[in-house]
Amino acid sequence: MSKNLTTREEDYSKWYNELVVKADLAENSGVRGCMVIKPYGYAIWEKMQAELDRMFKETGHQNAYFPLFVPKSMFEAEEKNAEGFAKECAIVTHYRLKNDPDRPGKLMVDPNAKLEEELIVRPTSEAIIWSTYKGWVQSYRDLPLLINQWANVVRWEMRTRFFLRTAEFLWQEGHTAHATKAEAIQESEQMMHVYADFAENFMAIPVIKGLKTETERFAGADETYCIEALMQDGKALQAGTSHFLGQNFAKAFDVKFANAEGKQEHVWGTSWGVSTRLMGALVMTHSDDKGLVLPPNLAPIQIVIVPIYKTEEEFAAISDAAHTLVAQFKKLKLSVKFDDRTTQKPGFKFAEWELKGVPVRIAIGPKDLENGTFEVARRDTLTKEVILKDGIVNYVNELLEQIQTDLFNKALDYRNTHITEVSNFEEFKDILEHKTGFISAHWDGTAETEEKIKDLTKATIRCIPLDRVEESGSCVLTGKPSVGRVLFAKAY
Amino acid sequence: MSKNLTTREEDYSKWYNELVVKADLAENSGVRGCMVIKPYGYAIWEKMQAELDRMFKETGHQNAYFPLFVPKSMFEAEEKNAEGFAKECAIVTHYRLKNDPDRPGKLMVDPNAKLEEELIVRPTSEAIIWSTYKGWVQSYRDLPLLINQWANVVRWEMRTRFFLRTAEFLWQEGHTAHATKAEAIQESEQMMHVYADFAENFMAIPVIKGLKTETERFAGADETYCIEALMQDGKALQAGTSHFLGQNFAKAFDVKFANAEGKQEHVWGTSWGVSTRLMGALVMTHSDDKGLVLPPNLAPIQIVIVPIYKTEEEFAAISDAAHTLVAQFKKLKLSVKFDDRTTQKPGFKFAEWELKGVPVRIAIGPKDLENGTFEVARRDTLTKEVILKDGIVNYVNELLEQIQTDLFNKALDYRNTHITEVSNFEEFKDILEHKTGFISAHWDGTAETEEKIKDLTKATIRCIPLDRVEESGSCVLTGKPSVGRVLFAKAY
Repeated sequence: MSKNLTTREEDYSKWYNELVVKADLAENSGVRGCMVIKPYGYAIWEKMQAELDRMFKETGHQNAYFPLFVPKSMFEAEEKNAEGFAKECAIVTHYRLKNDPDRPGKLMVDPNAKLEEELIVRPTSEAIIWSTYKGWVQSYRDLPLLINQWANVVRWEMRTRFFLRTAEFLWQEGHTAHATKAEAIQESEQMMHVYADFAENFMAIPVIKGLKTETERFAGADETYCIEALMQDGKALQAGTSHFLGQNFAKAFDVKFANAEGKQEHVWGTSWGVSTRLMGALVMTHSDDKGLVLPPNLAPIQIVIVPIYKTEEEFAAISDAAHTLVAQFKKLKLSVKFDDRTTQKPGFKFAEWELKGVPVRIAIGPKDLENGTFEVARRDTLTKEVILKDGIVNYVNELLEQIQTDLFNKALDYRNTHITEVSNFEEFKDILEHKTGFISAHWDGTAETEEKIKDLTKATIRCIPLDRVEESGSCVLTGKPSVGRVLFAKAY
Repeated sequence: MSKNLTTREEDYSKWYNELVVKADLAENSGVRGCMVIKPYGYAIWEKMQAELDRMFKETGHQNAYFPLFVPKSMFEAEEKNAEGFAKECAIVTHYRLKNDPDRPGKLMVDPNAKLEEELIVRPTSEAIIWSTYKGWVQSYRDLPLLINQWANVVRWEMRTRFFLRTAEFLWQEGHTAHATKAEAIQESEQMMHVYADFAENFMAIPVIKGLKTETERFAGADETYCIEALMQDGKALQAGTSHFLGQNFAKAFDVKFANAEGKQEHVWGTSWGVSTRLMGALVMTHSDDKGLVLPPNLAPIQIVIVPIYKTEEEFAAISDAAHTLVAQFKKLKLSVKFDDRTTQKPGFKFAEWELKGVPVRIAIGPKDLENGTFEVARRDTLTKEVILKDGIVNYVNELLEQIQTDLFNKALDYRNTHITEVSNFEEFKDILEHKTGFISAHWDGTAETEEKIKDLTKATIRCIPLDRVEESGSCVLTGKPSVGRVLFAKAY
């Protein structure tokens, strides 16, 4: 099955696209820039959703649902936000089709069904949500509002790529309102930490927490916090963002509250989101030339059992042993599949489950039954061990935890060896050309220099790391003074 | 709080709209025909989703996600389906806004960003999904496809009403493909039974299972199964539908498979859905003039504890007892809230939780602590009992089950006493005028008569019940022969 997969070495981008399709994660649809998320891919997304949703609720947030459409006048109320999304939005202008007199049986847009005001399909929901919050907030007692929404959004991207950039994508967007600036900043930071925790401890993807530069900031935000991951080709990927919105949306939508002294003040806001883009990060962080490698936390199937037999009798005996194992794993809430298809050979099954990234494979043959052993294979290391039947359930349970940890450490090791400090622009360009990864460099703090470096190298400032050391230095391009290093990289 | 709620007697429709808003389920948005589902309402919807999702997976279905947009040429491929939805769909024609030269800071649709082909915002996803299935099915081994999608859809309704009819709504839509007609019919029937099971045993809403007449059938289906509920004002509400699609979509999108003999055949299809409309059914089935009445299965808060005190010391002692109770309930996975707000009086709290439909309220005062008792009030019957402290946790746990059962039986009793058999058109009209509910009557089987009765009375055929008795009779309007009774009603 996997024999046709392009290797990462040959063409990383092609490898990724092929893998997404062959592993049944997603496929292109007949709609420009939109993909179909297939059941296997969606099952992984559901696991992400469930865990994130749990984390949001644990931090006091509630879910709600706001309209898909934003009337144009509402959309343009916060000017910076509107400007940031105006160039890539889907616009509904009509509400009815009619029979096309020139093409029997076919339809045309009914020109008499033009909307008085155009509707924008939400690219993000600040506008619609803040126009609603106006009615929800009168006094400080109504604050904070801690709301999350699971939704689809549309951004009319010209160049799309599975999961990483699609015209429509699925995400969650948190939108909160607070009485004080400090509380709103604390909320934006908290959610960045929640995202980092989720990425590292659930997805096994190490991330760097930081602040975006003004250029890279969310349109309409005063500050954007982010988590940045590093893919295996040395390109960075923004995995989640959390925005401190200041009073920008409160002012645009006139959301005020009476403080404890009865004085009217504008509310302070945040918004934060992660999307199906995380699916791309997952694939690009862990997978290899044989296919997907899934951390056990996210694997729809954690264990697959493959029988190896020649005769019906052998198959019957192996099936008995397999069913016993399945029952034992299910008791531990592990997700297990006994691949008892008679239409496929073991080699085919091995390749298929490797392609699909099942973390642990157990093979059972007649010899194993005689010896009271099973062959246990790890997907991540492609190694096998023969394990005594008696302790196998605990062994596999612990192995799954080990794999989860190992995947994180492996990715962390890769990431850490791909952060290079440079002191001049020659080194900067050299790293980009040969080693890639994050480049830690001094920058003079101007948008102009940032832009120039981007033009010259395609590298952008991924973030100003939150834990950076204050040190004086000189900008890698202009030599002007700098107070600390920032991280550059080429990025998805 | 609830003192301002219009009574059902005064104006049922006004009562419903007020209740939805005052109980924090939903509110109107600034987008025509679209509502905001507020956190309390959404929490109820989440409980419905979780249970339905569990039931779908238990019957072998997997979730996936398909695009929001349907290109016009794809939309019109299945002609009957297209015709059925063409008159009420939102159409995307452009993909960019630009600065409006006449209104500084404002935006206009960029006429240079017109799409080559218009995109329809999905009113339902048969077209996009069957165009995808074409690539998924080659042989009988690829069947059945058992897929569900949780999504938003848009139907440009002119007259909208909270939950029951909104331009955008949330739903799930199952789409399955089968090798044989019998298997597809079995699937559509199975899902109707799943919906009925969910409505009755989870939502405590009794339903009648039946078939739609050709007039009321889903556009593009060969047969539509439905579950029909009866609201407290005597109007029927279609709570869920399951369609046998025959080979209509398979033919429109050329979805064929090679059967076991290698012969090419068209696939057989089904689709089935329930939506946030169920929220409306929930409110209208159980609630009363004091507010919501929620079945314990669906209540975001199942138990509320209200302290009654004068002094700080009393409050401290009551809080201790309440916290102990809360911990005990949580162990049983019951959802409980201790309303320790010091800003509101008990009377206000009682009214608020009555309005919000919390099934059980426990009041604790200083006397209770002395006596080792608590006052337990039921929301559904508005009755109270004094319960000894020691057995209270089990008592309340069993009481919640009792309430769930009682709500169903009460609604069932109402429904059963509101099905009236009539034998002539005078009786038919008389029932509609005075008693309302379902009218069981003979019908000659023609769309013409169905239409005429609708014109004369506004009553439609809700369904041909699956369990109807075959009996010869004469049509209530035309006197022509009939083979059995059907159910008429005015409906939402």
